[in-house]
Amino acid sequence: MAKLRIGLGVDFHQLTEGRDFWLGGVLVPHHKGALGHSDADVLLHAICDAMLGAASLGDIGVHFPDTDNTYKGIDSKILLQRTQQLIAEKGYQVVNIDSTLCLQAPKIKPYVPQMQEVIANILKLTTEEVSIKATTTEKLGFVGREEGVVAYATVLLEKEEVPYTR
Amino acid sequence: MAKLRIGLGVDFHQLTEGRDFWLGGVLVPHHKGALGHSDADVLLHAICDAMLGAASLGDIGVHFPDTDNTYKGIDSKILLQRTQQLIAEKGYQVVNIDSTLCLQAPKIKPYVPQMQEVIANILKLTTEEVSIKATTTEKLGFVGREEGVVAYATVLLEKEEVPYTR
Amino acid sequence: MAKLRIGLGVDFHQLTEGRDFWLGGVLVPHHKGALGHSDADVLLHAICDAMLGAASLGDIGVHFPDTDNTYKGIDSKILLQRTQQLIAEKGYQVVNIDSTLCLQAPKIKPYVPQMQEVIANILKLTTEEVSIKATTTEKLGFVGREEGVVAYATVLLEKEEVPYTR
Repeated sequence: MAKLRIGLGVDFHQLTEGRDFWLGGVLVPHHKGALGHSDADVLLHAICDAMLGAASLGDIGVHFPDTDNTYKGIDSKILLQRTQQLIAEKGYQVVNIDSTLCLQAPKIKPYVPQMQEVIANILKLTTEEVSIKATTTEKLGFVGREEGVVAYATVLLEKEEVPYTR
Repeated sequence: MAKLRIGLGVDFHQLTEGRDFWLGGVLVPHHKGALGHSDADVLLHAICDAMLGAASLGDIGVHFPDTDNTYKGIDSKILLQRTQQLIAEKGYQVVNIDSTLCLQAPKIKPYVPQMQEVIANILKLTTEEVSIKATTTEKLGFVGREEGVVAYATVLLEKEEVPYTR
Repeated sequence: MAKLRIGLGVDFHQLTEGRDFWLGGVLVPHHKGALGHSDADVLLHAICDAMLGAASLGDIGVHFPDTDNTYKGIDSKILLQRTQQLIAEKGYQVVNIDSTLCLQAPKIKPYVPQMQEVIANILKLTTEEVSIKATTTEKLGFVGREEGVVAYATVLLEKEEVPYTR
């Protein structure tokens, strides 16, 4: 029987002019992008954190510290790939992911299928197992003022319990 | 054996004078109400989004777009009913829902049992399977200034795996 | 077979000079602490709320109201202990907890192992079953201005289904 575990990741990034806007592993055309040590992909970071948390492996800051130059400007798809290896080494695999991007602009709906494919590909899942939702904050707070972006991700992991055999 | 999936919904609405305040399908007496294209029931929207996300069915904006006049002023209980149909068509049913309303005022505790009944009724659950919690933000941020309201909902879905039979 | 349920807790506290800063049952050295009726341990409160929500037992405000002088200045470890009793009385036990602290300062990584031990001890879990993550909000919002702190916790509960016997 499979043993299940849950995780929840939350990530925040500032938005600023003159940066590429990476979301879910996809470059989204916009006059602003997210600021960060890596490519600042808030959605992939939230998913990594949910996976690490569910597997009790710490968080993204523990594994990929922003004080380490190795990770400067790094593609977050590489971080997701490493996270996948880390949970696999502990015997876990993802059952499903559900995530929400909170941002005022731009509309990301047209990019969601591509994001699902990128993430499913890295995690060896079907796109049916990677849900990405989006909402504005109705102009409220720093997200509403387009100063920042927030992502939430929840994940269910399972580990096959190997029956005892001689 | 049942296959499980998790989902997480987050929703935001502005508060404004002169609107009815619908929360969890119940009209809550207050000098402000939530602003939105529909009746702006932030709790029902978060629950719909959690259910849609868990079933990998997109989000509330995909199914009930706020650019569609069909949904202008619509009772969110109808949206929850349709969400229930959508997940049922994919073979899913809700195991349990846990939700949190973040609002500074009014106290919603007296209305929680009625909200649980309304939601359980629509989803054909017992009230034991629909948890509603509430918290202020301790006067912090736009919720603390009573400019807005936020709801989080998490949901566990199950799908009965039909054993192969001839 | 075990029946599973999920819960999600969110908690907020203001930060102010001249208060002890309790986080995850540990006193964290800092020039500010969290303001509240109890010791204002935002992480333990989010965990209590996630457990109560998953077990459909209401929320922390229902069980430990901040209008009750019994709880003035109370150690939140006592609240966690009582929450554990409440869910145990309904036949539930925790499968795993994953949590995230959102605060701008100080760095809490050095305190995480101690927090995990304190919480695991109270809940009779291993530290592997209590995940604690941390993130700044990248200077955004009230957390970024060091005016407040937010915690999210998600929990998976299980209840052993007793097979019918005569």
